[in-house]
Amino acid sequence: MILVLKEELNDDQKTQLEKHLEDFSFFTYLKFDDRYLAIAPDKNIKTKIDFLRLPFVKEVIETDHPYPLASHTLKKEASVVQVGDLQIGGPKLTVMAGPCSIETQAQLEAVAKTIMKTKTDVFRAGAFKPRSSPYTFQGLGKDGLTLLKNIKQKYKIPIISEIIAPEQIEEFDDIIDILQIGARNMQNYHLLKALAKSGKPVLLKRNPANTIDEWLMSAEYLLAGGNENVILCERGSKTFDPKLPIAFNTNIIKTIKENTHLPLIVDPSHATGDSSLVEQIALSAVIAGADGVLIEVHPRPELAVTDARQVLSCESFVSLTDKLQIVSELSGRRFR
Amino acid sequence: MILVLKEELNDDQKTQLEKHLEDFSFFTYLKFDDRYLAIAPDKNIKTKIDFLRLPFVKEVIETDHPYPLASHTLKKEASVVQVGDLQIGGPKLTVMAGPCSIETQAQLEAVAKTIMKTKTDVFRAGAFKPRSSPYTFQGLGKDGLTLLKNIKQKYKIPIISEIIAPEQIEEFDDIIDILQIGARNMQNYHLLKALAKSGKPVLLKRNPANTIDEWLMSAEYLLAGGNENVILCERGSKTFDPKLPIAFNTNIIKTIKENTHLPLIVDPSHATGDSSLVEQIALSAVIAGADGVLIEVHPRPELAVTDARQVLSCESFVSLTDKLQIVSELSGRRFR
Amino acid sequence: MILVLKEELNDDQKTQLEKHLEDFSFFTYLKFDDRYLAIAPDKNIKTKIDFLRLPFVKEVIETDHPYPLASHTLKKEASVVQVGDLQIGGPKLTVMAGPCSIETQAQLEAVAKTIMKTKTDVFRAGAFKPRSSPYTFQGLGKDGLTLLKNIKQKYKIPIISEIIAPEQIEEFDDIIDILQIGARNMQNYHLLKALAKSGKPVLLKRNPANTIDEWLMSAEYLLAGGNENVILCERGSKTFDPKLPIAFNTNIIKTIKENTHLPLIVDPSHATGDSSLVEQIALSAVIAGADGVLIEVHPRPELAVTDARQVLSCESFVSLTDKLQIVSELSGRRFR
Amino acid sequence: MILVLKEELNDDQKTQLEKHLEDFSFFTYLKFDDRYLAIAPDKNIKTKIDFLRLPFVKEVIETDHPYPLASHTLKKEASVVQVGDLQIGGPKLTVMAGPCSIETQAQLEAVAKTIMKTKTDVFRAGAFKPRSSPYTFQGLGKDGLTLLKNIKQKYKIPIISEIIAPEQIEEFDDIIDILQIGARNMQNYHLLKALAKSGKPVLLKRNPANTIDEWLMSAEYLLAGGNENVILCERGSKTFDPKLPIAFNTNIIKTIKENTHLPLIVDPSHATGDSSLVEQIALSAVIAGADGVLIEVHPRPELAVTDARQVLSCESFVSLTDKLQIVSELSGRRFR
Repeated sequence: MILVLKEELNDDQKTQLEKHLEDFSFFTYLKFDDRYLAIAPDKNIKTKIDFLRLPFVKEVIETDHPYPLASHTLKKEASVVQVGDLQIGGPKLTVMAGPCSIETQAQLEAVAKTIMKTKTDVFRAGAFKPRSSPYTFQGLGKDGLTLLKNIKQKYKIPIISEIIAPEQIEEFDDIIDILQIGARNMQNYHLLKALAKSGKPVLLKRNPANTIDEWLMSAEYLLAGGNENVILCERGSKTFDPKLPIAFNTNIIKTIKENTHLPLIVDPSHATGDSSLVEQIALSAVIAGADGVLIEVHPRPELAVTDARQVLSCESFVSLTDKLQIVSELSGRRFR
Repeated sequence: MILVLKEELNDDQKTQLEKHLEDFSFFTYLKFDDRYLAIAPDKNIKTKIDFLRLPFVKEVIETDHPYPLASHTLKKEASVVQVGDLQIGGPKLTVMAGPCSIETQAQLEAVAKTIMKTKTDVFRAGAFKPRSSPYTFQGLGKDGLTLLKNIKQKYKIPIISEIIAPEQIEEFDDIIDILQIGARNMQNYHLLKALAKSGKPVLLKRNPANTIDEWLMSAEYLLAGGNENVILCERGSKTFDPKLPIAFNTNIIKTIKENTHLPLIVDPSHATGDSSLVEQIALSAVIAGADGVLIEVHPRPELAVTDARQVLSCESFVSLTDKLQIVSELSGRRFR
Repeated sequence: MILVLKEELNDDQKTQLEKHLEDFSFFTYLKFDDRYLAIAPDKNIKTKIDFLRLPFVKEVIETDHPYPLASHTLKKEASVVQVGDLQIGGPKLTVMAGPCSIETQAQLEAVAKTIMKTKTDVFRAGAFKPRSSPYTFQGLGKDGLTLLKNIKQKYKIPIISEIIAPEQIEEFDDIIDILQIGARNMQNYHLLKALAKSGKPVLLKRNPANTIDEWLMSAEYLLAGGNENVILCERGSKTFDPKLPIAFNTNIIKTIKENTHLPLIVDPSHATGDSSLVEQIALSAVIAGADGVLIEVHPRPELAVTDARQVLSCESFVSLTDKLQIVSELSGRRFR
Repeated sequence: MILVLKEELNDDQKTQLEKHLEDFSFFTYLKFDDRYLAIAPDKNIKTKIDFLRLPFVKEVIETDHPYPLASHTLKKEASVVQVGDLQIGGPKLTVMAGPCSIETQAQLEAVAKTIMKTKTDVFRAGAFKPRSSPYTFQGLGKDGLTLLKNIKQKYKIPIISEIIAPEQIEEFDDIIDILQIGARNMQNYHLLKALAKSGKPVLLKRNPANTIDEWLMSAEYLLAGGNENVILCERGSKTFDPKLPIAFNTNIIKTIKENTHLPLIVDPSHATGDSSLVEQIALSAVIAGADGVLIEVHPRPELAVTDARQVLSCESFVSLTDKLQIVSELSGRRFR
C-alpha cells in the first residue's frame, strides 16, 4: 500500500498513520519523483479506508508490487540520472571505461589519455577489490583513491569506483562520482541502506545468479532510502553448461526495461571474461537498447593484475568506440 | 581410440580387429573427411599396440574425446555443407526463412515471394509439428508436404522442414533438401541413426536445456553413422529466471566454434519467442560469427496458427535483411 | 475447454461439435476415468454457449489448464495403475529392480533370484539402450528380449523395459508388462502417441532438464491418446554446479503430487550416478511420499557393461530392502 | 604455494620471503591446525626453489587449490568446532532451533522451554534480519539482543544469531556464541574478514545460487584470516523450475564432505519454505550424513512475523526430535 501525501509529514501525523499498522509493521516515508510517500506492505494494514480520511493523505494506491518505486507502478517514463553535466539514461549513449584495478599512476594516465581521446564519459578504476581468493591482490585501497584523485583533477572526468563498506562513503566523497555496488554485494542490505542515505549516484550490478526481481528489490532499497540516483548494470548470467560459465543474454534488456524505469548500463567485460568477445557484446547491448556500456581497458592487458583475460588494450577500445558510434546511430541513439 | 585405415575393410579384416575388443564393445566403421576409420571407446580395448601390426591400419589415434568426429580432433578447418549450389558454412551468410507451420498454399506463396525478393537461400515450413499440447494443431502432415512441393517446383529454392520419425524419410525425400531435427528430438537416437543412414543434409537444433557437449554427442551420432552433412542450429537456452524463459547467449557462438568444425545457424525466432526481439538477435548472431540465420516469416503474423508471437511479417523480414547485409559486411562475411 | 459427453459420439455428432471450431483447431475425443470427453484448447472456440444446447453434451468445463487429464482438474483422488495383480500407486510401496542392461542369461538369473527373495514387485532390464555415445554398447536388442522372456516365464514376475521406437511395441507385447520411456525421449511425441494407442502401462521418466509442467504435458499425450495406465518416474535434476551433475531434490515429490494424480516412482540410481548414495536417496524418497522405487542391481557391479558406477550389488540391494521396510512403515505405507 | 614454517615469523623473516614475490602479490601468514603457514597464489611466485633454502621454511607445498585450508589439502580428518562444552562435527548430531525473528520475551521463552525439553544444543533467533523488501520488518536489532541475553542467562544454552555488519561484533560478543552469516552475505568479504579476526565460531550459509567451490572460497576467507571455528550450513539450491523455487539436494552432502573437512549443518526450514516438508528434509539430511540441523520453531507459527510458512510449532518440533533420534541412530550417529 502506498499513500501519496499532500506534504512532508511531521511526527504527529506519522503517529496518526502508524496506529493503523499491525505489530512489527511500519511505514517507510520518502520523497520520490517529487511526491511525498508513505509505503507499507499491504498484508499488514488493518484498515485501508481510514487512511483516506486523514487530511494529509491525497491518494491511496493499493499494490502488492514487490518493488513499487523501481517498477513502473509510480513512474512510467525512463529515469535519467544526472552526474555533473552528464545524463545517464537520456538520448546519448553513456560510455564508461578504465582498468579493473588501480595499479600505478602511470597506468591510470595511459588509460585516461585514451579515454579523453574517445570522449568517453566516465573513468572507472577499482581501489577496493572483492576477490574470490583471499590470497590475491585486494586493491590498493586508500592509496588507490589518491591516484584516482589526480586523474579526476587533471582530466575533469567523472569517476566510478566500487565501494564495499559504509565507512568508505566519506573517503570516496570528493573523489568518486558514482559509487559502484559489485555483484557479490547486490544483496548486502547494510551497504545498500548506507548508500541510500548518501544520496550519491549508485551503479548497482546484477549478481549473475540472481533474477531480475531480486535485483530490482535491491534497487528498491536504494530508492526507499531516498536515493533516486540509481543506475543498473547488467554483467551476464550464470548458466547450466560448464563450458559456458557466463552468458550475455541479449533478451534481458527488453525485459529489464519493461520492469523498471531506471537507466541500464551493460558491462561486456564481465559478461564474458574473454577480451575477444567484449566488442561483440558491447555492440549487441547497444542494438538491444542498453543506455550505456562499461568497459575494462588497460595499457598492457597481459600485465594487468586483475581481469587480464577480459580487459581491452587502449587500441582495441578506440576501435570499439568507432563501431559503437555506427551501431548506436543505427539504433537511434546519440553517441556524442 | 581411432584407427585410421588404409582402405575400406572387408569382413575378414573386421574380424581381425574385433578380436581385440572386450565383451559388448565394438568398432564403428565409417568414412569421414575422405578417410576410412574404425572407432571404439578407449576403455574397452585390451591391447592397443597390436592394432598397429595389422597391415591395413595406417595410424592409431588414442583419444577419449567424447565426440571425435564432430570436434576438431580429426578436422581442424570449418566444414561446409553443400545443398545443391548452396554452401552452408562458407564465406557467405546463409539465410533461411518461412512460416512456422504450413497452413495454406496462399500462405506459402505469400512468403515465397518475399523470400525470392530478398534472395533468401532456403525456404522453411513445418508439416509435422511437435507441440507441447496434444490438443493443438499438429501440422498438416503429408498434405503439407504436397503444398511445399509446389513451392519448390515453382521457385526452385531448397526447402528445410522438420522430420519426426524415420518412416518419413522416404516421403520427404524428393521434396525436402534439409531435414530438421527439432530441439525435443535432439537425443532421439533412433531418429538420429535413421537420418545418418539417409545421408541427406540434417539441421540439428540444440535443446535449450542441453549443454554443448550433449548436443555435439548427438551430432556425433549422425557423423558416426556416415552422414557428414550436418548443420548445427542454436535456438537459445533455458534460464533460472521465470521472467526470462529463454535466453540468447551471444557468448555461445565462439565456444561452439571452438568445439566443432560444423556450420552453425542461429534461429532468432525461437531464441526469444518475441517478434520485437528477432531483429536484434539476428544481428547479434551475425556479429558473433554465426554462419546463418533461420527466421520465421508469415504474411499475417496475428493469424499464424503456431508461433504467432514470434513470427515476423514479410515487411519486417525485408527490413531485417537490409540490416543483416550491413552487419554481415561489417563482420567480414558476404551477404549475397 | 472440456465437454463432458453423455455417451460415446458418432461421426455426425462429432461433425456437429466441430463446426464451432476455428481453422486448424480440433477436438480430442477420449474416455477418461469412465467419462467420455471432447477436449479442445479454449482460445480456438468461437461460441461456447452453443455446446450446451447440443443434446449429447452433459457439461462444459472451461479451463485453460495445459494438462487437464494429468492434473487434478478432472480427478482429485490418486490413480492406481494395475499391472496384473500388482497395484502401483496404492497403499503398498512398489519396488522395481534389475540390471541396467541385459547382458547374459546368467546375469539375469542371478539378479532374478535376489529379486524373488526380497519379494520385489517388478523386474527391470534394458534391451535397447539410448547411450550418449554412438561408440558404446547399445543393448542386445531383440536377443535381449528373448533372455527376458525366459525370466518372465520362470519367475512369473512383471517386467519393465525401455522402448525407443513405435515399431517395437509389437515385439515387446507379450514379454514386457510396463513400457519405459527414457528421459531423452520424454518429449518424443511420435513415440508417446504410439504408446498411448497401445494402452499398455507406461512408465514416463522426467528428463532431468525439464520442468514438472513440461513432463506432465508429455503425460497428457499418453492420457489424451486414451491410455490411463501412466506411471511417472523421477530421476533427478540437472544443477548449475559442475561438481553436482545431478541432484535428487526431495521437495519435488510433494509438488508433483499437488500437480497430478498419477503414481510416482523414484529412480535413485540415475538420481545420483553413485552407488554409495542410492540407499539414502531411496529412503529419502519413501519418507517424502514416493509410491515406489526403481533400483539398478547387478550380480557383479564392477563388471556391469553400463552404469557400473551407480548399480547396487545383490547384497546391497537386499540390505536396502530391509531398511526400506522400516522407513516405509514409519511413513505409513505397506511394504509387502 | 604453501610454505610450512618452523615457527611464527618476525618482520625480517617476512621481508626475506616477500622479496621473491611479483608486484601486487603477497603472503598470507596464519596458524592453521597447529602449524604456521605462509600462503601465496602459485602463479605469482618467481623462484620456488629459493624458499627451501630459507632456514625458517620447513616444507613447500606446491598447489593451486583455490581453497587449500578449507579443502583436504592440509587436513584429512573432519574438523570439530568447540562451542563451550558442545562439539559440532563430532559423533553427536547437533540440533539448533528457535524462531526466525526475535519478537517478544514471551515468544522466546515459549520456544526455549521446548528447546530445553528436547535437549536441543543451540538456541537460534534473529535480531538483525536481511529482508528482500525494505518495507518489511528488519528485526528488533539491539533490543532483540537484550531479550536473547535473558534467555542465555536463564537457560545456559549457547546462542546463534545472524550478524550483518562488522561493527556488530562487539555488541554480539558476550551474548552470541555462534555468529551466523546469511546466504546473501556469503560473498561479503568485508564482513568475512572482520569475523575472521574475531576468532568466534561462525556458521556460514551457502547462498542457494552459489556453487560449492564459491562457498568454500568464502570459508577460506575465514580460515585464511586465522579463524578455524567455521561451521558450514546448507540451505537448499535454486532450480530452473518456477514450480520449485528451492531444492534440497540430498546428493550435495557427500560432495561437500569430499571437498572440505569443516562440519556441516543443514537448515531444512529454508531448504523448503514449506513447514510440511521440514521434517522429511531433516530426516533425509541426517541419513545423508549431515552433522546437525537448524530448525525454525515458533510457539504460534501462524502469527510469526517472518517465515510463517516454514516454521514448525513447538509440538511439531518435539515430534521431529523423536524421529531424528531414530534416524540418527540408524545412521550411526549419537543423538544425545
